[in-house]
Amino acid sequence: MTAAFAMLRRVTTATITTVLLKKGIRRCWMQGAMPLVPGGARAVGEAFTLRFVPVREDLATPESWGKPISTRAAIEAMPAGCIAVADAMGVTSAGIFGDILVMRMAKRSVAALVTDGVIRDKAGCMAANLPIWCQGTAAPASVNGLTFVGWNEPIACGGCAIFPGDVVVADDDGAVAIPKNLVEQVAAEGEEQERYESFVVSEVERGVPLPGLYPPDDAARARYAAWKAKRG
Amino acid sequence: MTAAFAMLRRVTTATITTVLLKKGIRRCWMQGAMPLVPGGARAVGEAFTLRFVPVREDLATPESWGKPISTRAAIEAMPAGCIAVADAMGVTSAGIFGDILVMRMAKRSVAALVTDGVIRDKAGCMAANLPIWCQGTAAPASVNGLTFVGWNEPIACGGCAIFPGDVVVADDDGAVAIPKNLVEQVAAEGEEQERYESFVVSEVERGVPLPGLYPPDDAARARYAAWKAKRG
Amino acid sequence: MTAAFAMLRRVTTATITTVLLKKGIRRCWMQGAMPLVPGGARAVGEAFTLRFVPVREDLATPESWGKPISTRAAIEAMPAGCIAVADAMGVTSAGIFGDILVMRMAKRSVAALVTDGVIRDKAGCMAANLPIWCQGTAAPASVNGLTFVGWNEPIACGGCAIFPGDVVVADDDGAVAIPKNLVEQVAAEGEEQERYESFVVSEVERGVPLPGLYPPDDAARARYAAWKAKRG
Amino acid sequence: MTAAFAMLRRVTTATITTVLLKKGIRRCWMQGAMPLVPGGARAVGEAFTLRFVPVREDLATPESWGKPISTRAAIEAMPAGCIAVADAMGVTSAGIFGDILVMRMAKRSVAALVTDGVIRDKAGCMAANLPIWCQGTAAPASVNGLTFVGWNEPIACGGCAIFPGDVVVADDDGAVAIPKNLVEQVAAEGEEQERYESFVVSEVERGVPLPGLYPPDDAARARYAAWKAKRG
Amino acid sequence: MTAAFAMLRRVTTATITTVLLKKGIRRCWMQGAMPLVPGGARAVGEAFTLRFVPVREDLATPESWGKPISTRAAIEAMPAGCIAVADAMGVTSAGIFGDILVMRMAKRSVAALVTDGVIRDKAGCMAANLPIWCQGTAAPASVNGLTFVGWNEPIACGGCAIFPGDVVVADDDGAVAIPKNLVEQVAAEGEEQERYESFVVSEVERGVPLPGLYPPDDAARARYAAWKAKRG
Amino acid sequence: MTAAFAMLRRVTTATITTVLLKKGIRRCWMQGAMPLVPGGARAVGEAFTLRFVPVREDLATPESWGKPISTRAAIEAMPAGCIAVADAMGVTSAGIFGDILVMRMAKRSVAALVTDGVIRDKAGCMAANLPIWCQGTAAPASVNGLTFVGWNEPIACGGCAIFPGDVVVADDDGAVAIPKNLVEQVAAEGEEQERYESFVVSEVERGVPLPGLYPPDDAARARYAAWKAKRG
Repeated sequence: MTAAFAMLRRVTTATITTVLLKKGIRRCWMQGAMPLVPGGARAVGEAFTLRFVPVREDLATPESWGKPISTRAAIEAMPAGCIAVADAMGVTSAGIFGDILVMRMAKRSVAALVTDGVIRDKAGCMAANLPIWCQGTAAPASVNGLTFVGWNEPIACGGCAIFPGDVVVADDDGAVAIPKNLVEQVAAEGEEQERYESFVVSEVERGVPLPGLYPPDDAARARYAAWKAKRG
Repeated sequence: MTAAFAMLRRVTTATITTVLLKKGIRRCWMQGAMPLVPGGARAVGEAFTLRFVPVREDLATPESWGKPISTRAAIEAMPAGCIAVADAMGVTSAGIFGDILVMRMAKRSVAALVTDGVIRDKAGCMAANLPIWCQGTAAPASVNGLTFVGWNEPIACGGCAIFPGDVVVADDDGAVAIPKNLVEQVAAEGEEQERYESFVVSEVERGVPLPGLYPPDDAARARYAAWKAKRG
Repeated sequence: MTAAFAMLRRVTTATITTVLLKKGIRRCWMQGAMPLVPGGARAVGEAFTLRFVPVREDLATPESWGKPISTRAAIEAMPAGCIAVADAMGVTSAGIFGDILVMRMAKRSVAALVTDGVIRDKAGCMAANLPIWCQGTAAPASVNGLTFVGWNEPIACGGCAIFPGDVVVADDDGAVAIPKNLVEQVAAEGEEQERYESFVVSEVERGVPLPGLYPPDDAARARYAAWKAKRG
Repeated sequence: MTAAFAMLRRVTTATITTVLLKKGIRRCWMQGAMPLVPGGARAVGEAFTLRFVPVREDLATPESWGKPISTRAAIEAMPAGCIAVADAMGVTSAGIFGDILVMRMAKRSVAALVTDGVIRDKAGCMAANLPIWCQGTAAPASVNGLTFVGWNEPIACGGCAIFPGDVVVADDDGAVAIPKNLVEQVAAEGEEQERYESFVVSEVERGVPLPGLYPPDDAARARYAAWKAKRG
Repeated sequence: MTAAFAMLRRVTTATITTVLLKKGIRRCWMQGAMPLVPGGARAVGEAFTLRFVPVREDLATPESWGKPISTRAAIEAMPAGCIAVADAMGVTSAGIFGDILVMRMAKRSVAALVTDGVIRDKAGCMAANLPIWCQGTAAPASVNGLTFVGWNEPIACGGCAIFPGDVVVADDDGAVAIPKNLVEQVAAEGEEQERYESFVVSEVERGVPLPGLYPPDDAARARYAAWKAKRG
Repeated sequence: MTAAFAMLRRVTTATITTVLLKKGIRRCWMQGAMPLVPGGARAVGEAFTLRFVPVREDLATPESWGKPISTRAAIEAMPAGCIAVADAMGVTSAGIFGDILVMRMAKRSVAALVTDGVIRDKAGCMAANLPIWCQGTAAPASVNGLTFVGWNEPIACGGCAIFPGDVVVADDDGAVAIPKNLVEQVAAEGEEQERYESFVVSEVERGVPLPGLYPPDDAARARYAAWKAKRG
C-alpha cells in the first residue's frame, strides 16, 4: 500500500473520481466535506469511521462524554496515519469535535478529519494543525444535536457509503473514498491520467483547441507519445 | 409490558409527545414517517431496527439481495409483534421494500413497518395488509440508492435516535419512539391525559372557552374531579 | 364587503392569482397551505393573524399555554367569520393546534384555519368540522418547536406577507391573500374571468384549439359576446 | 413498438427500474411526478417534451400565452398517444397547466401529462380525464414563476434526462423513462420478471422464506420451472 | 451587566452553548449567521431586533424606504452598543442592508449586525467596519424579497427565538443569544469552563489522553486544583 | 454597446438590481453564482449560454466528451469577450468544467464563467486567470451528474431566465443579467444612482441620519445638486 499511497499523493481527487467513474463508481465524493483551510497538502489514509445518530435528550448530555462508547474512546482507538471519517448525517448545527479533541487527534498522528457535519472552536481547531474537511463551523457541541454510537462500522458520509479500510484522499476539491480492493489500480491509472493532463496543459498553453486533444484523436496520441518519450 | 402496550393502544401519539416533553424529551417523533393508508388502527410494538447507508455501485446490486447481510435475512430475524424501523436517511428516490418483502413481513406477524424513506410496489404493499408509515412511494429498488448494512443497531429515523427495544407507537399523526425505561410511566400518564382531554372536549362542546380550562384552573379541576367521579 | 365576499365564493383561487398578477402582485399564494380534507367548499374571510417564533426551551412549555399571550387567548379574540392565518415559519415537526383548539375555533364560528405549518390530532381536527389548510400533520405540540408571540400583526405565511384585514380565499388549489383595498376590484374582475373561462370550456368541448381562443382573438371575442348575450 | 407498448402496460414501473439498473441505468425515475389521482391505469407512451425556465417579469405575462412559442402552440403539436413530459425545474408554486389546457390535451388524445412541477385548477383537471403525474397543485399560473421556451428538446424532469422519443411508463409508483433503443428489450425482460414475481408471491403466500427464493437458488429455480410449465 | 459583558468577551460562543445546554437550553445558536470577515474580535451586546416578512409587490418598493416604519427609522432608534439582530427568514436572495445603512449603524456605535439573511454591497460593508454575522451576500435590495415590518419585537433568527434584551455574543463559531435573566450566571460559569479547558489544553499538549481528563476523573480534578493554585 | 459596457464596469450589481426593480424586473440575480476568488474586477459581457440536463448513464460518459455536442465544441464557439453562463440546475456534486477547459476559455478571451453549479480542479482553475462565479468546487466531472445538451439556447441559471445576448455583470455581490433592450438605459440610470450614493456616503460620513437623505427629501436634493455642481 505504501507505494500506492505515495502515488495517490500526486493524483488529484478530480482525477480519482474520473478513474472510478470508468470503473462504474459514481458515488465516491463526499458532499459537504470541504477543507476548513484551503491550500494545504493532499491527505491520504485509511478510513477510520465514526457514527452519530440524532440527539435524544436523555442520552446526549455533557455527562455522556465520559461513557465507554464516546468520541474520546474512539480517538484512543485511532491508528496513526488513519483518516477519521465521521457520519454526522449532514447536521450543520452541532460541531462534532472542538479544539481539544482535535488536538488529541493530532497528538495521536491522525492524518486528517473528514465529516459531512461541522466542527466547533474554529480558531483552536486551526491552531491544532490537523487537516480538516467539513461543512463549516457551529458553536454548539455534538450533544446539542447528535448522539455518538460507535466506530469502525459502515457509515454514510456526504451521500457516500464509507467502509472501514476504504482509502480516503482529500484536497481542495474535497474528499473521495476508494474501495480497498481498487486502491493500487486507481493509483496507477490516476498517475497516468495526470501525466496525460500535463501534456494537455502544455498543448492548451500553445493554443491547441480541445476537440481532438481531450479526449485525444490519433494525432494527439502521437504527439503525447513523443512528449512522453522526450520527458523520460 | 403487555399492560402498558394495551394502554398505549388507547393513547394518541400526540399525547405521548406531550408526556415525553414534560420529561425533557423533545426528539421522539419521526419526521416523514406518515401512514401509507390513513385511518387504520394504532400500532404498538418494540423497535427492530434496520440500517441503510448510501449506494456504492460495486456493492448495492440486485445480486447483493442474496448475501448474508441482506434485507431478506433481517426479515427472518424479526420477532412476531415487533415494529420494523428502517433508517433510510430520508432518501425518497429508492423504495426500501417492495410488495414481496412486505408480504413476508406480514407472514412473520410483524406489527408494522416505519421508515423515513419510501416503499415501492404501492398497490402490492397495500394488499399485503402490513401497516406502513413512510414518506411515500418510489419505483426504484433500494439498491438504486441505498446499501443495507445491518439490523438491531442504534439508528437515525426521521431526525430521532432509535435504539433496539424502544417502544414505537404509530397512528394518523405519525410515529413516536418511547425510551424502553419510560414505557410504563408514559402509558399511565398518557391514559390520564386522554381522560382529561375527553372532559375538555365535553366542556368545549357545551361552549366553555379554553383559558382556565386547558390548562385547568381550580374551578376546572373541580369540575373534572366531579366528571371523573360520575364517569366511574 | 358582503357582496364582494359572495362573488369571491364563486371565483377560484387560480383565477384570483391571475387577476392579481395583472395588477403586479405575484406573491399572494401561500406555499404549503393545502386543504387537510380536499373537496370542501371555498372559504372566504378576513385574515386574523397568529405569529410563532422558534421554541426556546425555558419559554415554550406546556405551562405557557396558560399565559396571557397564548394561542388560547388569541382564539377568544377571533371574530366570527374570520380566517385565522398562522405563521409557523413552515415548521412541519410541531402541530400548531390540536383537536381541542380547533373545536373551540369552530364553536366561535371561525371560517377556516390557514397555516404554513401543520396541525396535530388529525382525526379529532377532521371531526371538528373547521376547514383547515396546512402542510399536514405532526404528533408533537407547538411548544415542541414553536413559541407563540402574538396576534393581529403582519406575518409571513408560505412565502407571502399577510396583513390583518387582508381577505383570504382558499379552495383545493390552496389559499391566497388579497390586499384589503383591492378586494372589490378583484372580485368583479374574477367573476368576469370565470365567465369567459366557462365560454372557453364550452368551446374546447366542441373541439376548438386554444390558439386564438385563450387568449382570444377578434373572432373568439365575437363568439364570446354572442354566447354571453344568449346566456343572459 | 405496438407489441412492446402492450407488454409494458403489464409491467410495473418498479420492475422497469430494476431491469434498467441491470443495464447500468440508475437515473430513470422522475422524482416528484406522482399520480394526481392514484389507482388509475398504467400509462405508456412516447415522450413529447416541454421546457420551462424561470419567470422574467417582462416576458412571462398573461399576454405571452398568445405568442408563437407558447404552451398552447405546443399542445397543438402533440401527436395522439404521446405522453407530455414537462420540465418545470421542480417549481411547486406555479401550476404549469390548468383545466382548460388539460381539457384540450385530452381532446387531442394525449395519453398523459408528466411533470416535476404542479398543475392548477385541480378540480377541473380531474374532470378532464387526462391522467396526470405531478408534485401537486398550486393556484398561480405558470407565468407567475415560469417562462415557456420550447418543445421536443432534451429536458430535465425530476432529476432525469428525458429525450424526445424516450418511452415513458407511469403508474402508482411514479413515472419512468426508457431510452428508445432499449424499449423492446426492457419490455421482454420486464414481462419475464413479472412472471417470476408472481411465482414468488405464490411461494410467500404458502410460507416460504425469502432467502433462497428471491433471488432464487437452484431449488427455487426448479420449482419456478415447474410452476411455469404447469401455468402454460 | 458591565462586568458580565467584560467576562463574556473572554468566553467563546462554543462554551456559552455548553453552559446553556446544562441549563436545558439547546436552541441558542443562530444557524446561518457567520462572520462576514472571520478572525475579528468577539462581539457582545444587547439584542435590538428587526423583523422582515416576505415581499408584497405593492408595499416593498424603493419608495417604502422613506416610510415611518422603515429600516432607516429603526437604525435611528438603535442605542449605542446594541447588537442589531434581523429576522430575514433565512432569505438569501435579497440583502437586508447595504453599505450606506451599515455605515450609518457604525456611526451610531452599534456593536454588530447579526442576521439569518444576507447583506449587499459587500465591499462597502467591509469598509464600514461594522462587524457583521450573516449568511453571505446578494446584490438585490431587501425590497426585492422582503418587507420590513418593525423593531424590538420577539423574532426568529436562524432557528432561535430572540427577544429584545437578550444578550448576544458572536465570534468565529457564530452568534448565540443568552436569555436576559441568565446572563450573569452564564458569564461566571463560562469563565470557569474556559479556565478548565486551558488546563486541559496544557494536559493534552503533554500527551495526556482525554478519557479521565475531559470530563475529569478525581485524579484530573486534583491536577486541575494544583494547576489553578499555581496559576493564581 | 461599448459605451454602455464601459459605464456598467463602474456600476455595482447591487445598483443594477435596484434599477431593474424600478422597471418591474425582480428576477435578475443568479442565486449561487458567487466569485470563486473575491475581490477581482467587475466582469461585463454578453451571455453565451450552456445547458446541462441530469446524467443518463448510457450518455454521460468520458467518451461523450468527444461528441459534436460537447462542452469542448461549445467553447470553440464562444466569441471573445462573452460571458459563458451555464445552467447546471444548481447541482453541486459535479464540476461542470475543470482546469483544462477553463484554460482554453481563457485562451479564447472569454471574459468570465458564470454558473449555478460548481467547478473542479480548483487550484488549476484559479491559476488559469479566468474570472469564475459559481457555487463552489467538487471533484467529480460533469458526466458524473450532468449531460451537456447544447449552447445559445434560453436557460435557467440560479433562478433566473437567461437569454443569449442578455448582458451579464458580475462582481463580489454576484452576477446579474440585464435584458438586451434595457442595457443602455440601465447603464445610464445606474451611473446616476452611483453618483447619488457617493454623495450619500459623504453625508453619512459627516453624521447625517438617513431619514430624509436616502431616499432624499427636498433639502437633501438641494444639497446633492450643490455637491454635484461643485464636483463638476
